[in-house]
Amino acid sequence: MEELLASYIKNVISVNDTEMQLILSFFKFKKLKKNELVLHHGEASQRTFFVIKGCLRIFYIDEQGVESTRYFAFENQFATALVSFITAKPSEELMQAVEPTEVLYISHENFYRLLELLPQWEKFYRIYLENAYVNNTNRLQSFFVQDALTKYRYLLEENPIIVQRLSNKLVASYLGISQATLSRLKAKK
Amino acid sequence: MEELLASYIKNVISVNDTEMQLILSFFKFKKLKKNELVLHHGEASQRTFFVIKGCLRIFYIDEQGVESTRYFAFENQFATALVSFITAKPSEELMQAVEPTEVLYISHENFYRLLELLPQWEKFYRIYLENAYVNNTNRLQSFFVQDALTKYRYLLEENPIIVQRLSNKLVASYLGISQATLSRLKAKK
Repeated sequence: MEELLASYIKNVISVNDTEMQLILSFFKFKKLKKNELVLHHGEASQRTFFVIKGCLRIFYIDEQGVESTRYFAFENQFATALVSFITAKPSEELMQAVEPTEVLYISHENFYRLLELLPQWEKFYRIYLENAYVNNTNRLQSFFVQDALTKYRYLLEENPIIVQRLSNKLVASYLGISQATLSRLKAKK
Repeated sequence: MEELLASYIKNVISVNDTEMQLILSFFKFKKLKKNELVLHHGEASQRTFFVIKGCLRIFYIDEQGVESTRYFAFENQFATALVSFITAKPSEELMQAVEPTEVLYISHENFYRLLELLPQWEKFYRIYLENAYVNNTNRLQSFFVQDALTKYRYLLEENPIIVQRLSNKLVASYLGISQATLSRLKAKK
């Protein structure tokens, strides 16, 4: 299962075998149950996760208890509550396995140690951040300019796995609409 | 005026005089009139700007012509339509001087050339991206969980210069509320 991660990394940066061994040695394996939280509200985000199997979601809960999902990470994707990971402040976001999930994770400390040990890791992290930025700005923009139907169609185009694989409740929490509205959109499309 | 930029850079990374001269040699000076657009919708974002004086804003216009502002950059801040800068795709965002403004800018080509020439520039860009990510995620979150009054109070706490220095029209476009609502909030606070 480290092969999946190794191949992901090789697609991004050039490293020799010794360097790859060093990188992989910092990652640990963990199995998560469905609905298991890996980060609670107010806890500092000390780990970055690479999904081997299953799905992680990153979400907020507002004062009325309404959940809003910012991101789903499926197989072969990285995920963390990145603001807290960067700032080391308590996280506003929570993180949860929404299916039985297997991950490899690296601690904040070791992630930043790699930045000092391996110049290529700066490039790896830079591209990680570029992708995260593009992703999040597209999400932000969808809240600015798109109505519910446009958002749903865009999601089907860009990321259909979310609609295909996850419950209506989760999809609605991602689009920022009610489950009733989502059902109407699904019927209309 | 290059001193402002040099001092900004020195606060982020360690470079010697020769390296600093190399970095600064890639930046060019430009004066912008109030309301001048530096990036149109659909144009690729080929420059990153450092504000010496004045203010740049980054915004969307939806199909109804409603403007939503994502970001204001004042003196001593960097700004670009970063998604387009990263992806080299046409920009959804526009960029405009909202006051008479002076900037130093670097082209996309030279910015990425610096990544190859100077290992420290990877670190500079990484920290640039970290800040941009934190900023944008906080903006995204404010759309998820905050009502208009909470958003306004948060803005006064975190970034009062926006309210103090810019018109109600611009502030409203940043908060995603109408000018009438903003006036009510200002009276209430």
